[in-house]
Amino acid sequence: MPSDKIPGMYRPRLLTPGPVELHPRALEALARPQLHHRSDAARQVFLQAKTGLEAAFKTQGQVLLLTGSGTAAMDALVQNLFAPGARVLVPVHGNFSERWAKIAQQAGLEVVRLELEWGRVVRPEHLESAQGPFDGLLLTHSESSTGALNDVRTLAQAFKARFPEGLVVVDAITSLFVSEFELEGWGLDAAACGSQKGIMCPPGLGYAALSPRAIEHLKPRGFYLNLASELKVQSTGESAWTPAINLVAATAAVLAELLPRLPEHIALKQQQNEILYATGQELGLKPVPEVKSPATTCFYLPEGVSYAQVKEAFAARGATIIGGQGQLKGRVFRLSLMGYSDLYDAYAVAHMMREALRFD
Amino acid sequence: MPSDKIPGMYRPRLLTPGPVELHPRALEALARPQLHHRSDAARQVFLQAKTGLEAAFKTQGQVLLLTGSGTAAMDALVQNLFAPGARVLVPVHGNFSERWAKIAQQAGLEVVRLELEWGRVVRPEHLESAQGPFDGLLLTHSESSTGALNDVRTLAQAFKARFPEGLVVVDAITSLFVSEFELEGWGLDAAACGSQKGIMCPPGLGYAALSPRAIEHLKPRGFYLNLASELKVQSTGESAWTPAINLVAATAAVLAELLPRLPEHIALKQQQNEILYATGQELGLKPVPEVKSPATTCFYLPEGVSYAQVKEAFAARGATIIGGQGQLKGRVFRLSLMGYSDLYDAYAVAHMMREALRFD
Repeated sequence: MPSDKIPGMYRPRLLTPGPVELHPRALEALARPQLHHRSDAARQVFLQAKTGLEAAFKTQGQVLLLTGSGTAAMDALVQNLFAPGARVLVPVHGNFSERWAKIAQQAGLEVVRLELEWGRVVRPEHLESAQGPFDGLLLTHSESSTGALNDVRTLAQAFKARFPEGLVVVDAITSLFVSEFELEGWGLDAAACGSQKGIMCPPGLGYAALSPRAIEHLKPRGFYLNLASELKVQSTGESAWTPAINLVAATAAVLAELLPRLPEHIALKQQQNEILYATGQELGLKPVPEVKSPATTCFYLPEGVSYAQVKEAFAARGATIIGGQGQLKGRVFRLSLMGYSDLYDAYAVAHMMREALRFD
Repeated sequence: MPSDKIPGMYRPRLLTPGPVELHPRALEALARPQLHHRSDAARQVFLQAKTGLEAAFKTQGQVLLLTGSGTAAMDALVQNLFAPGARVLVPVHGNFSERWAKIAQQAGLEVVRLELEWGRVVRPEHLESAQGPFDGLLLTHSESSTGALNDVRTLAQAFKARFPEGLVVVDAITSLFVSEFELEGWGLDAAACGSQKGIMCPPGLGYAALSPRAIEHLKPRGFYLNLASELKVQSTGESAWTPAINLVAATAAVLAELLPRLPEHIALKQQQNEILYATGQELGLKPVPEVKSPATTCFYLPEGVSYAQVKEAFAARGATIIGGQGQLKGRVFRLSLMGYSDLYDAYAVAHMMREALRFD
């Protein structure tokens, strides 16, 4: 094979765990003329997106579409499901589980932190070590700062065996559409997601899923992020405040293509991630996560190599990658194929890894 | 001129006061591949949008870009500028000034409502009738539910003559880019806007403008809408949470074209609105507002004609219009050319009005 590269002739590749390469149906939806959000056409598209998301979260409750980031959905869930003073257990083992703790703190909750090494997953025995009672458990399904995937189903079971009245709220931001997920079926009460992750749309929408039980337990707070205001109107395709309706249309358009093939899509994401990890192993790279999330790979940097060097090596080949956050800053690099991509894209990135990580 | 219309051969026209017809530069920006928000390219585009918005608001302070609607920006300003228990004066004369009152109420402020007839504007003598002291005044520049434009400069002066320590916070959601506006120059401390109005982008971004004085008075609250978190990072082109970066790019792209011709653009919006009001007068329609905002026309329905009939008459010609809100529901209809349009579009709509409002 010819090995001389033609300088600069690479197409851009976004290999970050959100935002991600856009689904073509999302781009098409965004190219349409502006819809008015209080029109029949908009209500129809809103309900398509909402119903599709409810199918994806596997809930008989409701998914509320919030104009904001995934963090807005997390903030809204904490504020509207727990009154100030409520006592919640928050395992902290990465940047996003840390975010749950900070949100709960700001909302005036009593936060019991369960500190774990970053990269590890939460196990039922960790939960059992925490001194109750608790009104809730805040979990991160895919902790994309470390690449770890928690078994939220088993954790919810363990928690509810001790605190059957408690609510289990899950950050599914990088797991939905990428990994299996079930809301009520797994004993979860509420979950958050965002538009720029597994659903391959631009950032700007947060999805807040509420099980029927969570809806019963609502303790609405705030104005813009008040979930009671949204619940009142969203089942008719309306929203309390002007929604990012173009992104809602993008969500609906991608769902129409993605939902009928969701199991195959999830299998693909798993396979792509395995290819990247296998390539890393071949290159002698050490993976960070104890249990691997298909949303992102996370490797320790090779001995004596800085993140700037790795980033530059990928950038020279057209690719945007991402480094570590918090305590992993400068110690790891991450790659994701959560965006629009197929198996051959994984092979392309594997090839790029072999080139980019050869620093001799 | 041939008067037989060919049925169904109308192009869609969005004549609502937000969302509006998109600027072609916005559509182009949205068609681009996904940017990662933590990249140099994204930081550059973010700073272009931020700096451009600061020029539009005419502030030496900062404009913060929030992923959310204009209501998110209003909520953020109230929560971050006033501590619970602060006493604010809120003139209420339409749906959006009513929203200020509700937001302030939810945020735990002591709200003194100044009730005026809908359609009227606030005058300095109204403010003087209110029993102080006040920590703030919440004003609506263009009250688009009635089509009225307040002279916020004079009102700020009158308020500050009595309460020099107070903060004047303005809803500029349908006035920025449509009508003259100055933040510090007019004695205002903070203002809110949204992406789907005068700037002709899709909905999904709220802009919160803070004067240097407002920045000094910040009393940060909340998590997602905490303005201190945003202030800390936005001057470097970052944002606390994943921003709707595609909409930020659309904002920057439109600003690049709009800012150098802003006075001419504002003059055009004024002229378009005058054409629509003149046509209404010719048709015997009674305008609602005491002082007319260029953002939207608002007419009482002709005697014996329902809003559904008017809406249908415009819809049959391809146009989406909007009715009344709150106490004006079923009593008025509204038309706006705030979106991408020129003088000839105003003549086109005038022609459509003459046809659509002939119910004989």
